[in-house]
Amino acid sequence: IMETCKTKIVSIVLHPKFFIMQEEILTQFKLLVFKRGIKAVSIDDIAREMKISKKTIYQHFEDKEDLVKKLLKKHLDEHKIIIEKIHEESEDVIRELLLIMQCSTHMLTQINPIVFEDLKHYYKKAWNNFEEFKKEYVLGRIKKTLEKGQKQKLIRKNIPLDLMAQLRLKEIELLMDYQFIRSFNMSIQEIQKNITEYFILGVGTPKGIKKMYEYLENPEKIKFNYNC
Amino acid sequence: IMETCKTKIVSIVLHPKFFIMQEEILTQFKLLVFKRGIKAVSIDDIAREMKISKKTIYQHFEDKEDLVKKLLKKHLDEHKIIIEKIHEESEDVIRELLLIMQCSTHMLTQINPIVFEDLKHYYKKAWNNFEEFKKEYVLGRIKKTLEKGQKQKLIRKNIPLDLMAQLRLKEIELLMDYQFIRSFNMSIQEIQKNITEYFILGVGTPKGIKKMYEYLENPEKIKFNYNC
Repeated sequence: IMETCKTKIVSIVLHPKFFIMQEEILTQFKLLVFKRGIKAVSIDDIAREMKISKKTIYQHFEDKEDLVKKLLKKHLDEHKIIIEKIHEESEDVIRELLLIMQCSTHMLTQINPIVFEDLKHYYKKAWNNFEEFKKEYVLGRIKKTLEKGQKQKLIRKNIPLDLMAQLRLKEIELLMDYQFIRSFNMSIQEIQKNITEYFILGVGTPKGIKKMYEYLENPEKIKFNYNC
Repeated sequence: IMETCKTKIVSIVLHPKFFIMQEEILTQFKLLVFKRGIKAVSIDDIAREMKISKKTIYQHFEDKEDLVKKLLKKHLDEHKIIIEKIHEESEDVIRELLLIMQCSTHMLTQINPIVFEDLKHYYKKAWNNFEEFKKEYVLGRIKKTLEKGQKQKLIRKNIPLDLMAQLRLKEIELLMDYQFIRSFNMSIQEIQKNITEYFILGVGTPKGIKKMYEYLENPEKIKFNYNC
């Protein structure tokens, strides 16, 4: 019995360490990937940066594909938490839409757009998980926001919510499309702002649109303290 | 000299016949393709329908890919002429956008959406020609319409025309996306109307938006007599 208890204690002590290392590897991988894209980062690069052996990495991850999948999951989980927080803390949906806009712009400017190209072309499984996330979470989130906005009389009644949510999702996808973004002589912030204004004009009531311009003309009112 | 002249006359007489048959084959091919998609129509099917030999078809077209390419070209050329006519005959751009909307909806309801899937997956060259057409002609056309609308004070000034034209093109592309269309419990007419309303709300001035609702509430004012 003593023996068993000892083992148990050891395993409890070991577990957190294992996960701490796993998190650290993912964090380092994320840093490198955001800077250079996925294809351009090897397991060797992570080992070198962290001054650990490749063996240590392989104790925590099957292969690079596993790393990519887990990094994407971690990133999407974190993103979801922030979006939900913005949703809960925003009194009106116009503010909410503008804060989410700022959050995703902030995130996108930190990610080398090659990441999305690499994901799409070389990591089909992770890409499919990303597609699932957009279909399951993002679409649902947009729809709920629009519904909340209808109750607040900031979003037009009698619009087909499913269709409008899909249009918004397509617009968000365009912001992750490198070819699309670089075809304009504009920063991603400007593009994002114009597209979000376009969206709110398309679905907002006159009251909602008025509110949007109030926020856009007084950016301190949508000052942004989320860790996007 | 007499001999040469005779040959010339013969060739002049022969040519139109050749082209008439070519046109007839294309027209029959178009009918079948619009109904069933591209993959589902064979050279045999055309020969059977027209009661001509396959040899006759091969005298006019290299192969099925050649047929597809020429049909697409013919179709896009015709579509372009109609759109330009609508453009010239419309006093204001709101009417123009709504007429073009009706024209393309009318066209899309006649085409089995499988056609676009087949084109994209099995006829890369023709698909690329289609992509070129969208980039060269459609984008330019939308931009010119928006510029005209700015002069008419129906479209907002200070919007990035390139970006707005691209957004509109993406919306038009969605209408040719079978997966997208059938994910809603709506007719293509309803989807098209909602998307066009959304677009005009996004780019229109208050005056432009008012005009749009006048037209939508009085459909006889945008009665449609183009052969789309």
